[in-house]
Amino acid sequence: MIYFDNAATTFPKPKEVYNETMSIYQDLGLNFSRNSSSKSKEASTLKENLKSNIQQLLSSKGEVILNPSATFSLNEIIFGLDYSGIKTVYISPFEHNAVYRSIKEAQKRYKFDLEIIKFQEYSLDYEDLELKFLSKKPDLIICLHASNVFGNILSIKNIFSKGREYSATTLLDASQTAGLLDFSELSSLCDFIVFAGHKTLYGPSGIGGYIYNNKNIKLNPLLYGGTGIKSEETDMPKDIPERYESGSPNLLGIIGLKISTDWIIATGRDKVLKKEKENYSRLLAVLEEFEWDISIFYPENSVGIISITAKNSSPQEIEMMLNDSNVSVRTGMHCSPLAHKHMGTDEKGTIRFSVSYFNENSDFEKLEEVFEDIF
Amino acid sequence: MIYFDNAATTFPKPKEVYNETMSIYQDLGLNFSRNSSSKSKEASTLKENLKSNIQQLLSSKGEVILNPSATFSLNEIIFGLDYSGIKTVYISPFEHNAVYRSIKEAQKRYKFDLEIIKFQEYSLDYEDLELKFLSKKPDLIICLHASNVFGNILSIKNIFSKGREYSATTLLDASQTAGLLDFSELSSLCDFIVFAGHKTLYGPSGIGGYIYNNKNIKLNPLLYGGTGIKSEETDMPKDIPERYESGSPNLLGIIGLKISTDWIIATGRDKVLKKEKENYSRLLAVLEEFEWDISIFYPENSVGIISITAKNSSPQEIEMMLNDSNVSVRTGMHCSPLAHKHMGTDEKGTIRFSVSYFNENSDFEKLEEVFEDIF
Repeated sequence: MIYFDNAATTFPKPKEVYNETMSIYQDLGLNFSRNSSSKSKEASTLKENLKSNIQQLLSSKGEVILNPSATFSLNEIIFGLDYSGIKTVYISPFEHNAVYRSIKEAQKRYKFDLEIIKFQEYSLDYEDLELKFLSKKPDLIICLHASNVFGNILSIKNIFSKGREYSATTLLDASQTAGLLDFSELSSLCDFIVFAGHKTLYGPSGIGGYIYNNKNIKLNPLLYGGTGIKSEETDMPKDIPERYESGSPNLLGIIGLKISTDWIIATGRDKVLKKEKENYSRLLAVLEEFEWDISIFYPENSVGIISITAKNSSPQEIEMMLNDSNVSVRTGMHCSPLAHKHMGTDEKGTIRFSVSYFNENSDFEKLEEVFEDIF
Repeated sequence: MIYFDNAATTFPKPKEVYNETMSIYQDLGLNFSRNSSSKSKEASTLKENLKSNIQQLLSSKGEVILNPSATFSLNEIIFGLDYSGIKTVYISPFEHNAVYRSIKEAQKRYKFDLEIIKFQEYSLDYEDLELKFLSKKPDLIICLHASNVFGNILSIKNIFSKGREYSATTLLDASQTAGLLDFSELSSLCDFIVFAGHKTLYGPSGIGGYIYNNKNIKLNPLLYGGTGIKSEETDMPKDIPERYESGSPNLLGIIGLKISTDWIIATGRDKVLKKEKENYSRLLAVLEEFEWDISIFYPENSVGIISITAKNSSPQEIEMMLNDSNVSVRTGMHCSPLAHKHMGTDEKGTIRFSVSYFNENSDFEKLEEVFEDIF
């Protein structure tokens, strides 16, 4: 399989994830922190090490909450906030349905104004932002770091810095960037940073979470249940992270993500990024050969994602031909109708190619051949 | 490690789970159903096969919803129901905090009466149930199938049948029994049956779900996000299961649970149950030797769980001594303060031993030796 669907989930994972996850799971065998055996302590140490890897990669000292997915994290934060002081919520025009559907549902329940930050294609209209914030104070700002459809990296620093002037709560969806981009100038501007374990963090699916950077903001948990502490209390404990980690966690996910983040740190985040950028350039070079037949959407500043449309075929037709040649991509709406609407591709969507650290030269050669057959 | 903490999570898993899960994951590599490649179809078939295994083991033709845990499932159902017609909710006195904390939170939000069904120790007081239902019609009944603390199997058939006479919605928490007990007479009495993947279903942790047996009951989803279908709609799709399965699923969990349920079916559920019962009897025989020093809680009709207290030591002291001898148990409240309160063990909790299919004779011999040293 020639795999260009890394924005859905990176594949392959570092070989250590495949080779070591299951044997560690088999050796530990049990639940975290729920009994006092030495194995349980070993498991807890592993989890703590994973959390410090995440802190390191996201340049934050905030509390790391682990849960099943970025979608879960976004829901917990969006539905857990206290909306009594929230009159206006701003989101980017590139938001995934994990944010868009959630915030639309929250709007039904809590009644607030929902504003979409103005972008000219991929560029933030900063002047418009200043004016809008002035006329309607931002109370909550939710932005993804990079679009899962077009790959463009958003000017989060500008948006969140300006939001800070109005004491807005800031939520960053780093699903496509955690473990890949540099967060050192960004992290302190974010009250919450959401990550997915199975994308740019190279772990298995079923594990994600968020960094709770600002504990002054109170959050109701999304799940009520057992936490292994203060079981006698009817209310959920106030302790963090326990308040947000009830139920039995995904052990294989935690172990796998610990291994993959160890791998990123050992390899060097910069090196992983450099390689992904090289693969992005290779992909772009192949696509550009066919500019007669396709339209390429590529922003200046992006992660390893490129969307295209074909001039004479639907995305679904192209996808079928690619599948027949064993090339894996993703077409359609990518669960992000807002982004497609913004870029005018909302009728049929796009064909999305996405690379990772692990794409090889042969992948691009094969793609070139297949495209020569198609066009 | 001598492992008697199977009620937390069964250990070991069938060897196929350890040997085959990761290689299938590595081979499939990608997300389910989110692109149209052959590997994606293979993954979807695997998921469908898992769902039919669950249907078979729980004697139901209802739609199977997969999600991260039984806790997640209970929260989705408890918070997803329409409470406009719910005036009175009944629960058993053995409920885990995944039900108790959730229903108490739901009560704050939706205002209903919460009644606890009367039990004399482990026995349902059926006469009291009849009278209570008559004076306060049950609208929703939530019961676990077997207590995670004392192992007693509840008279669900009596409770839910009587509830049906009042058209009550019935929710069964089968966390400690799915894959182990016979559901053929029970399933049709349940609107929802919740299961945990990592306990009596012998799968890895991080995967669970529920059977949506009665689609006439509408449920709001707990998570809003991408579902891979109808992405252009702002609302969550009405389609089941997609409505309840947003976000990237736990692939390793799904594969592992498919393999473990294949194993249960191939081995024969009856044979697994018989072996667990034998192990339960062995455990009980060992414990009974020390009745001078300990109090044993053991109902007549139970799964492989036995709680004890020691006459002259706290559960925590006993646990430490057991840990020193590499015997893994679980002490304290087991996230079920209600059950402890009901049985009068709410001050210090109990020491819980729990067996599975995989305990060996040597485990019981070792336990006997360790107990001889302790007492």
